[in-house]
Amino acid sequence: MPAFSAAEYRDRIARVKRRMEAAGIDVLLCAEPASLNYLCGYDGWSFYVHQFLVLSLSMDEPLWVGREMDAAGARLTTYLKPESIEPYPEDFVDAPDRHPARFVAELMKRRGYGRARIGLELDAFYFTGRSYTELTKALPDSRLIDVFPLVNWARIVKSDAEIEMMRGAAAIVSHAMEVGMAAVAPGVRECDAVAEICAAQLHGTGPYWGDYPSALPSVPSGVKSAAPHLTWSGDRYQPDSVAYLELGGCHHRYHAALARTLYLGKPPQRLADLAKVVSEGLDHALDAARTGRTCHEVEAAWRAVIERADHSKSSRIGYSIGLSYPPDWGERTASLRQGDRTVLEPNMCFHMILGMWREDWGFELSETFRVTPAGPPEILTRFPRDMVVKD
Amino acid sequence: MPAFSAAEYRDRIARVKRRMEAAGIDVLLCAEPASLNYLCGYDGWSFYVHQFLVLSLSMDEPLWVGREMDAAGARLTTYLKPESIEPYPEDFVDAPDRHPARFVAELMKRRGYGRARIGLELDAFYFTGRSYTELTKALPDSRLIDVFPLVNWARIVKSDAEIEMMRGAAAIVSHAMEVGMAAVAPGVRECDAVAEICAAQLHGTGPYWGDYPSALPSVPSGVKSAAPHLTWSGDRYQPDSVAYLELGGCHHRYHAALARTLYLGKPPQRLADLAKVVSEGLDHALDAARTGRTCHEVEAAWRAVIERADHSKSSRIGYSIGLSYPPDWGERTASLRQGDRTVLEPNMCFHMILGMWREDWGFELSETFRVTPAGPPEILTRFPRDMVVKD
Repeated sequence: MPAFSAAEYRDRIARVKRRMEAAGIDVLLCAEPASLNYLCGYDGWSFYVHQFLVLSLSMDEPLWVGREMDAAGARLTTYLKPESIEPYPEDFVDAPDRHPARFVAELMKRRGYGRARIGLELDAFYFTGRSYTELTKALPDSRLIDVFPLVNWARIVKSDAEIEMMRGAAAIVSHAMEVGMAAVAPGVRECDAVAEICAAQLHGTGPYWGDYPSALPSVPSGVKSAAPHLTWSGDRYQPDSVAYLELGGCHHRYHAALARTLYLGKPPQRLADLAKVVSEGLDHALDAARTGRTCHEVEAAWRAVIERADHSKSSRIGYSIGLSYPPDWGERTASLRQGDRTVLEPNMCFHMILGMWREDWGFELSETFRVTPAGPPEILTRFPRDMVVKD
Repeated sequence: MPAFSAAEYRDRIARVKRRMEAAGIDVLLCAEPASLNYLCGYDGWSFYVHQFLVLSLSMDEPLWVGREMDAAGARLTTYLKPESIEPYPEDFVDAPDRHPARFVAELMKRRGYGRARIGLELDAFYFTGRSYTELTKALPDSRLIDVFPLVNWARIVKSDAEIEMMRGAAAIVSHAMEVGMAAVAPGVRECDAVAEICAAQLHGTGPYWGDYPSALPSVPSGVKSAAPHLTWSGDRYQPDSVAYLELGGCHHRYHAALARTLYLGKPPQRLADLAKVVSEGLDHALDAARTGRTCHEVEAAWRAVIERADHSKSSRIGYSIGLSYPPDWGERTASLRQGDRTVLEPNMCFHMILGMWREDWGFELSETFRVTPAGPPEILTRFPRDMVVKD
């Protein structure tokens, strides 16, 4: 039942082991849900309790460590042998006096890693400060080394099978954008537009069933469009206001994202002017996103365009995207921004998002793309780039 | 734009300060999104980057600390004065060489807390191991004390205004259950059922607009129903199989949850027998959930019923529920289980969930309830308890 072939998981483990050797660790302790999925296929909404994956250089396959009631899910979604599934008892859940990190530490000691160099995903969400302090107490003879985001860097270059998942995700989000643009109109409540968008995301499209995106739709309008991460309410869209939709599509936990702006009425000139500049900047930045270039160079191509038009943007213009779990569809590795010297390689995927947030309004335009072996990138998402005008 | 009155936030801060004094801390550093919302109203899908709230005993209102682009959201959703909003620069996001916890540490030092006793939410998801190690390095003269889940314990007893939100959430999930039960049928894809359920959750019902639940619908069937936290796929429901729906409803970030089981065909006798026992256990446990009783006693009422019928369940039968963010709608405080001596008080709310997972099938029945000043609880969710049979 894992989403990929056994050979694909073996290849991932081999690549992660090479990174472990380079990082000088014997054992890797993962807590990020995407790391668990990447290395053993595990998939479930169980990351609201502590769960781990243990991979040592000497193991053929990793150990899954999670809650007793979730062991059934591990059996159903992974390729692991039964003895590689190590559940902790139910009374470790939300208990003041015992902690799952202590359980995994004792397990590692029993397996002979009590004096090992152990790599941690120290800044992974779901790897809490408490998990860290429990490990330091329970493993006094080990060396605990922060290697985050080691697995994320392995994830950034996709296999062809993963790219097929990305194409599915992109087809879904492109379809959801059509549904969303049709739904938003003056007088419509934000929550009702989101309901239609989410339904489209989950039905999916064509052969691609819809998995849940790691972030919910962002659909602000008017003054709320100045704040990129506000969620919706029962407010109604107003005439003569700007709005944007920033949406994800997901297939087998792989993500594509897409943002477009619309205007409910006749767009003011300053907005139309900005839209034109941003669109030109997108063209230039996409064209620069080629194998061998750096993230810094991609951003510079954008920056040159908007600076000529006297605009500026302090935040990054994109990030790598792929396999992920809430709260983020980004991979937390390469960012398209000044100073990021990551060199683009074929089958890296990025969400390039040009968000221009002003004092009391905002504008967004984005695409998800795949770096190709030669030439410009493959744009995975498909939706006309012009601002949608609903007059 | 915060969801509650200024007086309500003042009252919350006063109650949290009393807990801070009891815990022996001068300053509280929160990282759990629900803590931020509870104390200043902040609401946004920004918890995929580090964000904090700082409250000292000497402050009238807390400080919000988050990413530069999210400061606009803080201005729009909180009651805070502009000088209480402290954004960190964009280049702290996903950067290997700088960390937002370092920023908040320097801020606390500037505000005079460099030698304070600082309480941390050490086991909150989103408070990472890296956040902890950065704070220990940057605040060598402070005492860092784990006080998690201090704010969660303040949240467990709701105000009447919060109970009104809970009623809204319960109305939404009760409606979503109707939609889900109508959608599931042999031949229907799981993702299509979920799409209809999610649309119902987000449209909301009556005066209650739908906010996003902190966990997605759980809709497994057949052998997958043995694994409580599997998510859906494009698989089709099969005739002669068991399925259950475990759903959330959310209004202004307050949650109610509800689970019901259905059978696509004529239910086997063992399932019908189990359903009867679980239903009787639910009646008894709900009746025991009265002010002055302990969580342990509530669970014991359930246990007595199922043990008479030779059943057992190793996991808890419920948890407190209310204000929350992904990945969990539970509050991580009181659990309805053996040994939990939390005494029930009026306006505590719980999700009592009786999940019976067997080797290759499962059964669920649940209600969300409010503890009342006298007598049995107010059941907030409304849906017939009998197993739904679609023959």
